[in-house]
Amino acid sequence: MNELEHWMRHALALAAKGRGSVEPNPMVGAVVLDAAGRLAGEGWHQTFGGPHAEVFALSSAGERARGGTLVVTLEPCCHHGKTPPCTDAVLRAGIVRVVVAMADPFPKVAGGGIALLRAAGVEVHVGLCEADAVALNAPYLKLLRTGRPWVHLKWAMTLDGKIATWTGDSKWISGEESRRRVHELRGRVDAIIVGRGTVVADDPLLTARPPGPRAPARVVLSASGELPERCQLRTTARSVGSDTGGPVIVYTANADKLVGWAADGADVVALGDGVSLDAVLADLGRRRFTNVLIEGGAGLLGSAFDERVGDEFHVFVAPKLIGGTAAPAPLGGLGVQQMADAVALDRVTSEPFGADVYIHGFAPRGGQSAGPPVTG
Amino acid sequence: MNELEHWMRHALALAAKGRGSVEPNPMVGAVVLDAAGRLAGEGWHQTFGGPHAEVFALSSAGERARGGTLVVTLEPCCHHGKTPPCTDAVLRAGIVRVVVAMADPFPKVAGGGIALLRAAGVEVHVGLCEADAVALNAPYLKLLRTGRPWVHLKWAMTLDGKIATWTGDSKWISGEESRRRVHELRGRVDAIIVGRGTVVADDPLLTARPPGPRAPARVVLSASGELPERCQLRTTARSVGSDTGGPVIVYTANADKLVGWAADGADVVALGDGVSLDAVLADLGRRRFTNVLIEGGAGLLGSAFDERVGDEFHVFVAPKLIGGTAAPAPLGGLGVQQMADAVALDRVTSEPFGADVYIHGFAPRGGQSAGPPVTG
Repeated sequence: MNELEHWMRHALALAAKGRGSVEPNPMVGAVVLDAAGRLAGEGWHQTFGGPHAEVFALSSAGERARGGTLVVTLEPCCHHGKTPPCTDAVLRAGIVRVVVAMADPFPKVAGGGIALLRAAGVEVHVGLCEADAVALNAPYLKLLRTGRPWVHLKWAMTLDGKIATWTGDSKWISGEESRRRVHELRGRVDAIIVGRGTVVADDPLLTARPPGPRAPARVVLSASGELPERCQLRTTARSVGSDTGGPVIVYTANADKLVGWAADGADVVALGDGVSLDAVLADLGRRRFTNVLIEGGAGLLGSAFDERVGDEFHVFVAPKLIGGTAAPAPLGGLGVQQMADAVALDRVTSEPFGADVYIHGFAPRGGQSAGPPVTG
Repeated sequence: MNELEHWMRHALALAAKGRGSVEPNPMVGAVVLDAAGRLAGEGWHQTFGGPHAEVFALSSAGERARGGTLVVTLEPCCHHGKTPPCTDAVLRAGIVRVVVAMADPFPKVAGGGIALLRAAGVEVHVGLCEADAVALNAPYLKLLRTGRPWVHLKWAMTLDGKIATWTGDSKWISGEESRRRVHELRGRVDAIIVGRGTVVADDPLLTARPPGPRAPARVVLSASGELPERCQLRTTARSVGSDTGGPVIVYTANADKLVGWAADGADVVALGDGVSLDAVLADLGRRRFTNVLIEGGAGLLGSAFDERVGDEFHVFVAPKLIGGTAAPAPLGGLGVQQMADAVALDRVTSEPFGADVYIHGFAPRGGQSAGPPVTG
């Protein structure tokens, strides 16, 4: 690994610190090397709307940036957004070389930052560790490209592939460490999505406990509009906060039945088409939701699988057996006909989580429905 | 860890080399230390009916055994079985101290070897690493105590807990490495057991490929006696060998329907009670089968779970999704009613096997139905 690759990997690790805090912005990390190639400054994009990574890195380097190199995981911006253009700061600091992992497909940038720097006489290299940069910001890139958020699917199942006993009891399949991991995930996504059945069966609050960097919206899909008159989601719909939960959104084809929910503060969205997942995701994308988490139950997860909307899978396997032909498995729906049609996950890892095994992977080619990521 | 414990662990590792070759004898390993405590000889029980571990260890030590210590994982035998009593060999070699991990509950030994040695003036210590020795020979101990073989349950499932698509296609769920591991397991057990449905659906040969130390009997449970007229098990029933497979045994409540199978060389066993798993296991125990492997399908595995006959579980989780409410899960049957009644496995390990994850564990307390192992 050469020097610059080392620093780019460092910048990527810095960028990842912004996960959950910067969306719908991309995660970005930056390192400034002085004219002799020594580390002079570093930074990362920390919060949505806050200063960009380059600004932190350049200001921590100060005068040592002059004649130096900026190593940055994403093309510097060249437009006035919530902050001034980073290209200005780069030029002002006297940087002579910029190494960029990937261009930014954001329409107001889209190569413009790179072109501006080159026009000003700065040496610009693009593409170092590009695959890693693309993987890091896959949710950002998907939202830009498709208008749909990145979809996480999560389930916990027993070693015999069940998510509840035949009577419907599911507390608890997984152990404490696994549930803690799920709450961490909840605390960094923009929405947690469940089906009507889960609201009826579990009366969930759908909050991250303890709270994470963001309070996810709590989304229910109920085509029929039939939801319990009294449940935690409805009673807490108005008291939005990191402890009490994000806003409640209900997608339905029968908004008439949910007047009470709307009166109690839920955002009831009428979809005319029987509540297709794609229509739901398109609406969430319009809200600039970058990551959403589908938690179940089997019906909704099965639809998500059948419609191939999942991008990233989080599965907790608990070393317990419950048996039962009638006990539900994680994915309902129709399923594939032949093993040859099975969806083989990509970049799979497994690790022990307490007594459980956490298996994590991605839909093939970065997204089940997404095609290859745009790399600018 | 003191010196003797070190050597006992070494002897346990030697003992394990006999797995698959010595049953229904126990696995035994032995180390001889000279009078100064240095390694003088070692050995293990290598094949059923062959010389015992002590004999190998003492003969490799020769004269250096005199005044020395024998470290052995199981009480030396004191009876004429297929070989002369080991206690004779120990005394003849001039051993002055014997360290034994556990007494042998085999009725013709059962403390007699230890008593004989002590009566001859040898210092005998019992119980070093006893738990490990008990775990090593749990199948031997179960067969002695209950008359039933140790029951391995094996299944391969997708990450969404399915063993086949909704159309019944199951080739292949797991990858090559996992299937190789299953064939290794097959090659060291006394029988592979499947239900009628598996014979109908898969027409399996039920052999270990490549062959292992033993050619397992191929056991089919068919209460109704309805089995295909033509299938691999029937056509190979007479050609028994390590390549062609072990003998075929069919348990049924309708032997009349299986006259053709019997004529073709299958051992058709009529059980009057609707073919309970316990009756099957009792019969296999009478044949001195030590380890049996239930491979499926869901119906048989579900019964095995509902009747709590499983002792050891081998589960391969493949990172593939197939979905489908109608796709079968590994365990059919009734199952438990509440999560509190779930069977939590013991001593669980997980490890990557190619793309799959192999999760291995034991029924609580060493055996689902077995109670705590006898330690002599």
